[in-house]
Amino acid sequence: MSGGEDELVAWLRRRLPGRDLLGDDTARFVARGALAATVDQQIEGVHFPSGLDPGVVARRLLAVNLSDLAAAGARPRWALCAIAAPPAFAHRRFFTALLAACAEQGVTLAGGDLARSPTLALSLTLLGEHRAGARPLTRRRARPGQRIRLGGPVGESALGRELLVRGARLLRGRVHLPRSLDLPRRLRAAARRAVARHLAPDPQLALGAALARAGGAGAVIDLSDGLARDLGRVCEASGVGARLDLPSLRRALAPDFEALCAALELSPLGLALGGGEDYVLLFTLPRRAPARLRALGMEIGGIEPGGKLEMRDAEGRLHPLPELGWDHLRPSAGQAFD
Amino acid sequence: MSGGEDELVAWLRRRLPGRDLLGDDTARFVARGALAATVDQQIEGVHFPSGLDPGVVARRLLAVNLSDLAAAGARPRWALCAIAAPPAFAHRRFFTALLAACAEQGVTLAGGDLARSPTLALSLTLLGEHRAGARPLTRRRARPGQRIRLGGPVGESALGRELLVRGARLLRGRVHLPRSLDLPRRLRAAARRAVARHLAPDPQLALGAALARAGGAGAVIDLSDGLARDLGRVCEASGVGARLDLPSLRRALAPDFEALCAALELSPLGLALGGGEDYVLLFTLPRRAPARLRALGMEIGGIEPGGKLEMRDAEGRLHPLPELGWDHLRPSAGQAFD
Repeated sequence: MSGGEDELVAWLRRRLPGRDLLGDDTARFVARGALAATVDQQIEGVHFPSGLDPGVVARRLLAVNLSDLAAAGARPRWALCAIAAPPAFAHRRFFTALLAACAEQGVTLAGGDLARSPTLALSLTLLGEHRAGARPLTRRRARPGQRIRLGGPVGESALGRELLVRGARLLRGRVHLPRSLDLPRRLRAAARRAVARHLAPDPQLALGAALARAGGAGAVIDLSDGLARDLGRVCEASGVGARLDLPSLRRALAPDFEALCAALELSPLGLALGGGEDYVLLFTLPRRAPARLRALGMEIGGIEPGGKLEMRDAEGRLHPLPELGWDHLRPSAGQAFD
Repeated sequence: MSGGEDELVAWLRRRLPGRDLLGDDTARFVARGALAATVDQQIEGVHFPSGLDPGVVARRLLAVNLSDLAAAGARPRWALCAIAAPPAFAHRRFFTALLAACAEQGVTLAGGDLARSPTLALSLTLLGEHRAGARPLTRRRARPGQRIRLGGPVGESALGRELLVRGARLLRGRVHLPRSLDLPRRLRAAARRAVARHLAPDPQLALGAALARAGGAGAVIDLSDGLARDLGRVCEASGVGARLDLPSLRRALAPDFEALCAALELSPLGLALGGGEDYVLLFTLPRRAPARLRALGMEIGGIEPGGKLEMRDAEGRLHPLPELGWDHLRPSAGQAFD
């Protein structure tokens, strides 16, 4: 880091569109309609491995927040970023990437705070606008009989995290796998996709917007702490139970995911249900939802009365859904980088 | 910390007014008029000493953000809080105090994020509403000829920080001074006030609201990084210079501040100009401002053309204003607890 705080802020202001932003300690802006607000953190050694390119960290920090707004069906608008960092942190590299990522999404960086800390900890607050006339999405609208759908594959991000622990690296936008990893060519491609999904999640804003516009959706949540845990949250908030269909869930996994898990001696179901950081939407739809909604995502089960969380295997046997997933206050082995 | 993340969130939700808040990852609310947004952090060992009561930390975190909104003349409304903490952190003690402090100010806790980290780092985003018809306050409106006024004493907070480093403690709301501190009774009272001001700043929301309502103010800023540095920011943003009047500044200091500094062998001027964390407003007023505005705060100098920052001593001699104050990217000796 060359230069002090005022120099960095001046450098930053030259890259911002409006004079009204970052000039004072408080940003001023006008929202149309109801606001959606969320905050998420990225901590070095917990959410990402030490030494990760600050530009990649910046994009990931924004992405995990965008995913929350996707689940609310809101349009992202303003961000405020707090950075606690050791002296060597490359603030400009971080902000260059953050501003580029914000610009791609129509988000304005409207405020920030800089502090020193021995541990790199980044927090971003993201504000969005609910679309006029659209019904805000919520996790509380699951009802018995609704079908459960996934907006994208689960478990792949956690597999990518495991590959990072085993030595995979992202260098200049390309994933490099360690030589020690002896995999056939097809699985190497799947491994690179998993690492990329983990480091650079692609929040499902278009899906969230479509669900909000259509108005016929049940519950919506973005999967950050694992399918089992987040589905449990939907059920608890809605006062219902759920039954996953295992063969359907397997069809919704990423290509070659199970083969890659087998080659790495990892449990595909463990990662799919409890790996976390998927940043895809899980949503429920009434059986008679419009066809344009039923075209979204892939069905993996249904909502049931009562509070039980179960899964049905290929033979039709029912099992309780394992209690897997992230608890941010309870460290579990293998869930973080330190 | 007993229990996991979901238990803590459930506990927290029972203490929140609206079902719409914290139920989903994204809070939804409707603002009247233009929004004011700010974010500030409190890092253990940097902004406050290790082992400080989490309840005191919570109130301080809110206060430093409230001070930013005071400087904008905005009414505080919603807060989002991100916590990165070691496993032993007393989350419930922190939130109990944060919710109480929010309630006192009419602020609703609208979102949060919890993560593990070896270093305790707290960040709060505070959203407020600009009052209808009121002109938003800014640091960019200083003009030559305007008088500079202080909303409260400067340097006292930094003196309190120094006393904490020397062993002062806050226990159950009472400041205890170390036995090693040999001070007359009057100075002991001043020392206790300084520690209390440092740990529990009292943001000048009423002053900010009065300045916004009256409409005749020049520039406004809240002093967080030291009078010299923050006045420099006002001057740079407004394209002007400033001349402080040293005898006037001395009259604006806290009672017994200079005597206490002498007893502790500290520079009163160094603390007043560069100590930081004062969380009082500095504002400028035209010479012919209405009397009700001129009754606010104490005059300490005037705005000048050009870009020079000077101070005039009791003999009328001019000196350049020393470049003191906090730079959050450049650690200086004696400015933090670690």
